[in-house]
Amino acid sequence: MTVSPFDHPLLSGLLGDEEAARHFSVEADIAAMLSFERALAEAEAECGAIPCDAAAIVKALAAFRPDTAKLRAGVATDGVVVPELVRQIKAAVGVPHDAHVHFGATSQDVIDTSLVLRLGEAVEHVGLLLSENVVRLAGLEQDFEGRAMMAVTRMQPAIPIAVTDRIASWRAPLQRHQERLKELSGRLLVVQFGGAAGTLEKLGDKAAAVRAALAGKLGLADAPQWHNQRDALAEFAGWLSLVTGSLGKFGQDVALMAQAGTDIKLTGGGGSSTMPHKQNPVKAEALVALARFNAIQLSGMHQALVHEQERSGSAWTLEWLILPQMVVATAAALRLAAELAAQVESLGH
Amino acid sequence: MTVSPFDHPLLSGLLGDEEAARHFSVEADIAAMLSFERALAEAEAECGAIPCDAAAIVKALAAFRPDTAKLRAGVATDGVVVPELVRQIKAAVGVPHDAHVHFGATSQDVIDTSLVLRLGEAVEHVGLLLSENVVRLAGLEQDFEGRAMMAVTRMQPAIPIAVTDRIASWRAPLQRHQERLKELSGRLLVVQFGGAAGTLEKLGDKAAAVRAALAGKLGLADAPQWHNQRDALAEFAGWLSLVTGSLGKFGQDVALMAQAGTDIKLTGGGGSSTMPHKQNPVKAEALVALARFNAIQLSGMHQALVHEQERSGSAWTLEWLILPQMVVATAAALRLAAELAAQVESLGH
Amino acid sequence: MTVSPFDHPLLSGLLGDEEAARHFSVEADIAAMLSFERALAEAEAECGAIPCDAAAIVKALAAFRPDTAKLRAGVATDGVVVPELVRQIKAAVGVPHDAHVHFGATSQDVIDTSLVLRLGEAVEHVGLLLSENVVRLAGLEQDFEGRAMMAVTRMQPAIPIAVTDRIASWRAPLQRHQERLKELSGRLLVVQFGGAAGTLEKLGDKAAAVRAALAGKLGLADAPQWHNQRDALAEFAGWLSLVTGSLGKFGQDVALMAQAGTDIKLTGGGGSSTMPHKQNPVKAEALVALARFNAIQLSGMHQALVHEQERSGSAWTLEWLILPQMVVATAAALRLAAELAAQVESLGH
Amino acid sequence: MTVSPFDHPLLSGLLGDEEAARHFSVEADIAAMLSFERALAEAEAECGAIPCDAAAIVKALAAFRPDTAKLRAGVATDGVVVPELVRQIKAAVGVPHDAHVHFGATSQDVIDTSLVLRLGEAVEHVGLLLSENVVRLAGLEQDFEGRAMMAVTRMQPAIPIAVTDRIASWRAPLQRHQERLKELSGRLLVVQFGGAAGTLEKLGDKAAAVRAALAGKLGLADAPQWHNQRDALAEFAGWLSLVTGSLGKFGQDVALMAQAGTDIKLTGGGGSSTMPHKQNPVKAEALVALARFNAIQLSGMHQALVHEQERSGSAWTLEWLILPQMVVATAAALRLAAELAAQVESLGH
Repeated sequence: MTVSPFDHPLLSGLLGDEEAARHFSVEADIAAMLSFERALAEAEAECGAIPCDAAAIVKALAAFRPDTAKLRAGVATDGVVVPELVRQIKAAVGVPHDAHVHFGATSQDVIDTSLVLRLGEAVEHVGLLLSENVVRLAGLEQDFEGRAMMAVTRMQPAIPIAVTDRIASWRAPLQRHQERLKELSGRLLVVQFGGAAGTLEKLGDKAAAVRAALAGKLGLADAPQWHNQRDALAEFAGWLSLVTGSLGKFGQDVALMAQAGTDIKLTGGGGSSTMPHKQNPVKAEALVALARFNAIQLSGMHQALVHEQERSGSAWTLEWLILPQMVVATAAALRLAAELAAQVESLGH
Repeated sequence: MTVSPFDHPLLSGLLGDEEAARHFSVEADIAAMLSFERALAEAEAECGAIPCDAAAIVKALAAFRPDTAKLRAGVATDGVVVPELVRQIKAAVGVPHDAHVHFGATSQDVIDTSLVLRLGEAVEHVGLLLSENVVRLAGLEQDFEGRAMMAVTRMQPAIPIAVTDRIASWRAPLQRHQERLKELSGRLLVVQFGGAAGTLEKLGDKAAAVRAALAGKLGLADAPQWHNQRDALAEFAGWLSLVTGSLGKFGQDVALMAQAGTDIKLTGGGGSSTMPHKQNPVKAEALVALARFNAIQLSGMHQALVHEQERSGSAWTLEWLILPQMVVATAAALRLAAELAAQVESLGH
Repeated sequence: MTVSPFDHPLLSGLLGDEEAARHFSVEADIAAMLSFERALAEAEAECGAIPCDAAAIVKALAAFRPDTAKLRAGVATDGVVVPELVRQIKAAVGVPHDAHVHFGATSQDVIDTSLVLRLGEAVEHVGLLLSENVVRLAGLEQDFEGRAMMAVTRMQPAIPIAVTDRIASWRAPLQRHQERLKELSGRLLVVQFGGAAGTLEKLGDKAAAVRAALAGKLGLADAPQWHNQRDALAEFAGWLSLVTGSLGKFGQDVALMAQAGTDIKLTGGGGSSTMPHKQNPVKAEALVALARFNAIQLSGMHQALVHEQERSGSAWTLEWLILPQMVVATAAALRLAAELAAQVESLGH
Repeated sequence: MTVSPFDHPLLSGLLGDEEAARHFSVEADIAAMLSFERALAEAEAECGAIPCDAAAIVKALAAFRPDTAKLRAGVATDGVVVPELVRQIKAAVGVPHDAHVHFGATSQDVIDTSLVLRLGEAVEHVGLLLSENVVRLAGLEQDFEGRAMMAVTRMQPAIPIAVTDRIASWRAPLQRHQERLKELSGRLLVVQFGGAAGTLEKLGDKAAAVRAALAGKLGLADAPQWHNQRDALAEFAGWLSLVTGSLGKFGQDVALMAQAGTDIKLTGGGGSSTMPHKQNPVKAEALVALARFNAIQLSGMHQALVHEQERSGSAWTLEWLILPQMVVATAAALRLAAELAAQVESLGH
């Protein structure tokens, strides 16, 4: 099933990004959830919150392979995969250590922390692609320094500018996005661990120590539960859409420059099934589409801020429908923009 | 890769709909595109627009199996799958009939008509699910006639009403949606056939006859090209979101009624990984999430109305990113709503 | 205060429409609410639902002038203007007839019916503007019949088409919008009358007769309450955005044609404060802006479908923030499009 | 004309904020534009970019009163107010100094810098309201420390938590928003000065010095032109929506707590025109409506990132339709939230 182009065997060739999409596969999600359960068992054992050493749990998790048909049925019933996953893990661990699996945690801890772990990897990937774009655009500035082109304001020719003026207006926002990513990462890459209602009530006075140890083992920052405070995710979604928006401007400019074919020369444009003479600015158009797509999705991540009480099934589910696609859209746009920059043979006169 | 929950092996157990998603698989898309090419060859042969009989093309199409790796690469280059697909078909048909494959058509004809063919099937599926919901809600009205409940206005208890008053406010919009679907179907299920720029310039005075014959063979209405007029698709997207919006109200009401547990009794709510006593109204919450999801996506289908000139690569691509998901979200919501109605054991007092 | 350009003394010169905006003034709203109360008193008197004849109420309403400062304070406290308005009306009517003012009705009846009454006038205005646009575009088709221009697909020159092909792609959607408006008007222009929770409980067996009489006096269709079923409003909002979307395509095309200045000649473009040679396609750009604006707002009208229980304070308020602006944006776009069509001096070659 | 509730004489009593709206009045806009022209004349005189001293211009500006009817007509023609405003200013200044008014600047410089000047004041106002909310919520934590309430997860009672746990989940995001505001302010409150196409071509080697002096006089940061890089505005819009989203969660929680009336007691809820016993949580509902409103609008500010070439008439106009409303919605939500917190008489048990 391939309802989304990001998952589509053919369309993802243009619109997808394999490396980013990989972090949202079932395999990656389950692996991250098992990392959570392993780190939790270790942290709780170290802090004396569970009476055993964690080795038995860790060993069983290493060999664990889920029954995905049952996981799917579990989601259909429970709305989340964790209750069934924990049942399977406990069965794999066996008596008596099974009682110490997932101790004090709840579904949302596992799912949100798994998400953050994978977002951490996605952030790294996207950050690298962003740097590559900055470098490529700076390269274009060097390549075409000294050339001029006609500025266009309100779709009308205005006055001549340097080609580097235009390119700088593509590059400068990307550098501000690098700055923004640094600022928000500290708020985003934070462990979620709160138990049934955010109070870690089963861990008593060991709660803070366990959470800190858990965060440390997972390479995440430690902070109180944020299960019903989704601002860091919405902020990150905003950042993703800022990036695709800036790249959409780049794509729109390239498509407009390519109309008459004199301001820009591109290698390798797209073909037509009827008009062999055409060189369509396919990647440029895709950048515009992905920018508008993320701008639309962003609205949903902000709707999900109205996350009622201690856990909102509906707002949380809405995030799942949106955020992974925004990440992949952004990675795809960055990949396409870098490729498009590499296709530029000539700019200006 | 499973970026979208609609494609996700686990999450689609709750949020997906297999029958609807099937129409957006690569297989279904290619099959519909081949139907287009077959019907086109037949129509053109009958009308004398191509000099051969179409049997050779039809036979080759029946046996044709695409090289999907090359199709994927074609999308990456051309932005659409059709140029590479037509190359492969022509190779399969061979000299001399290959010259008459795809004659006078362009990529958008194939892709848009393939979409409409599959939307036709999706409309039927969704229409049946809608009827099922109307029947089930009418059944609840019968089952709980004579019972009363407290109306709630602005989140505060108001005055007693009949349980059937509440149920009727769930059912009545669905019946209006049935009426709307009839009205819009005639505008939606229309062949797209215009050639390179909408004028069918290669078919000369046979253009109208070929288009009519093509439409007839495909079971679609015949009308002039609409390749740069996307109102019927945006209208349909609006209908999908009206449906999920009405079901979201149903879901929100059920979740609110289930809070105290006295107004409604449901069988089979979702379990929690920490609180075995809980019965979460999972399907009701999912209805709210899907309603908000479609409300967000709808904005994108209307952005795509700004479809510049004779063909907009960016606006068209934006549709691909959105419409299939809206269809599946709607089918999933209808399935969930029918299941939720079936879970109602008791309503009112 | 002029937060919205639609209300702004300067910006509304471009982006507003006085006739449409007039229906959303306080004066128009209060006048429509008083019409409701007057028609209600008459209907209830005729049906014997109130013991008096209605003349005293009608007379007092004719002379009634509200204390708007108190109305404003009432909105701040009650979230709706009606409780304070009814208090003022009752005081104006005086003992003993005051007891029969607003009998059996609730705030939402007054506000929603007032809205529908004014939407009815707006629909007429917008419908006329739509017809004018169809006529003007048909006029352009006549004026420039026989001329050719280069089709542009994916932002690249394709093959020559007739100028009338391009114009027809602007006109045809508008004619479908005329058809759609007819279909939806019957669902939109419906009285809302349900009382506290939709059951007209105070009117006993006279409820249906009173509602029918009330609808008749107001020139609206009669149907059961729809106070928590907002599909007709969301459908209408969708129609508004279809219209502006189609006009946005027209605007985008004109702006693109005006770039090189050879495909189209316009009289009276906008000036620049620095570049006296420029003729900016201001109206064309505004059409694109209004199309994107309505596409965004539409999402909100669909979010408001999740209208919980018998009355949702939050979803209802959300409609108020959005729908009037969508109506005015549409009227402004239609006005601008007609003006833009009239500015066309030359099209094609 | 009062199309938007933020401008509406009655509805702004609930949904508006006078102090925030004041910054978007015509008067405030014109005053800020005149400040720009005055500071520009002074900066250019000091740097020797204009041959006169600036006193004559400054004096004329101090006495200048625009002809607003002509400004309105100018907007209708030019799409921006500046060309006509500059004509009027030049006439007021008179020969020979009129030649040095607005020297080297363009419309967008005036409008964008005027916006930023007023956003600076709005940021201060909103920042104060945000602090007030943090203080009030911290006050509630003190007032109700030691009390318990039932946590609710997925709309179902979960386990008891401290009342302070719930309040902290309202307060903590607001404190993160304070941190975010500091980070983004430096990117937002920046002078825009680029001339016709961003290159300040008329100022030659004095360009940088004039821009720095201009920024200094206006109390803004100095940076190269950002007229076609709208990321700082979109980022700020995202921040506004983060704030209203967090307050929407607060409002939704209060409305849900108020249902049964035992978890929370509020003074001064809203009345009903039919049910005198009701105490509607009007401010809480308005917070939800404003959160959803801003979440919707945010999509538009991100669409406007696709700001083609050196100046986009359509994307820029789209910002005007959206950003002021988002600012006022945020200020209104902050005001309402502080009032709502002050209405809390009792929380928990």
